[in-house]
Amino acid sequence: MTSSDAGGHRRDIPLPQAYRLLNHGPTVLVSAAHGGRRNVMAAAWAMPLDFDPPKVTVVIDKSTFTRQLIEASGCFALSVPCRAMADATFAAGSLSGAQRADKFADCGLDSFAAQRIEAPLVEGCVAWLECRVIVEPHHQQAYDLFVAEVLAAQADERVFAGGRWQADAPAELRTIHHQGGGAFFVAGETVQAAKPRG
Amino acid sequence: MTSSDAGGHRRDIPLPQAYRLLNHGPTVLVSAAHGGRRNVMAAAWAMPLDFDPPKVTVVIDKSTFTRQLIEASGCFALSVPCRAMADATFAAGSLSGAQRADKFADCGLDSFAAQRIEAPLVEGCVAWLECRVIVEPHHQQAYDLFVAEVLAAQADERVFAGGRWQADAPAELRTIHHQGGGAFFVAGETVQAAKPRG
Repeated sequence: MTSSDAGGHRRDIPLPQAYRLLNHGPTVLVSAAHGGRRNVMAAAWAMPLDFDPPKVTVVIDKSTFTRQLIEASGCFALSVPCRAMADATFAAGSLSGAQRADKFADCGLDSFAAQRIEAPLVEGCVAWLECRVIVEPHHQQAYDLFVAEVLAAQADERVFAGGRWQADAPAELRTIHHQGGGAFFVAGETVQAAKPRG
Repeated sequence: MTSSDAGGHRRDIPLPQAYRLLNHGPTVLVSAAHGGRRNVMAAAWAMPLDFDPPKVTVVIDKSTFTRQLIEASGCFALSVPCRAMADATFAAGSLSGAQRADKFADCGLDSFAAQRIEAPLVEGCVAWLECRVIVEPHHQQAYDLFVAEVLAAQADERVFAGGRWQADAPAELRTIHHQGGGAFFVAGETVQAAKPRG
């Protein structure tokens, strides 16, 4: 783990803006840590659930090692990977960490320390949300669906600044959106819809 | 309402593939009908919840007229709009239908009949899911979160065929992903991640 911010591009995001980091439906990396172990997995099924205080919801299968760590620690992080990380994201979604000494290394991922939780954040991503689980036993059991409050959020200022995704972000830093089988849409151009007439 | 398929491009999608219509995080149009009334709204907070039988989950605020129709009928449709429909999608997310004779018309939207449910599907979209609510009173009340089973799915074969989104789909037919304030990312190029080494 490192706490470097090589380019110095990470910025804290005001919590009422945190939902915008997920609003457009990017695939995320879910990480957690407990008792000296840590893990990371990919999740396409994650979305905002409320604005302020911000909440998120994410599907985390019972078979995953990450889920064991989340249930033990009560926390997880969502890191939003970019195009440069498509291979690592697919690897994180395909390999299991249960039998590995360090799945981060096996996926080619580095990490850095979160501000509010034990779970590590993934280096090289473009946005990060630190989350504390709101325990909902029925939905966790019946649907593998976790609800959580967002305690802290950060973003790379080159792609998200002033509360907005930047339309001119470099290609390698654009978010990725999993179609299936390792194929991702890259977030493309921004279109601004006309203001509706009441 | 019309049942035309002007270009003849709509195709039924096998239910185990239905999750792929939402997996990449597009903004959707939610429609419902009951007792001779109908409505449509936009939702960025929708995602798959299971593969087979397919389920989805979507956040629908208590203040919306669409929610009244969903709770009365037990069903809703998700239509996936494309770039050509960005203005109409933003309008559907901004105007309320409660006081309107026909919000579809006010948003410039046409509709056609669903196969399994009463809710109308939105013409000009590129994918459609017909959904029956699995009643979960606590999550509906506490989080405005609805869970539903997908009963039928269709897609425009120009953008989704053989179980896959088409990388060469025309620009106007690409899905849109709401950032906020009427700004949408358009789904861009497709990147294929390398198969991870176990």
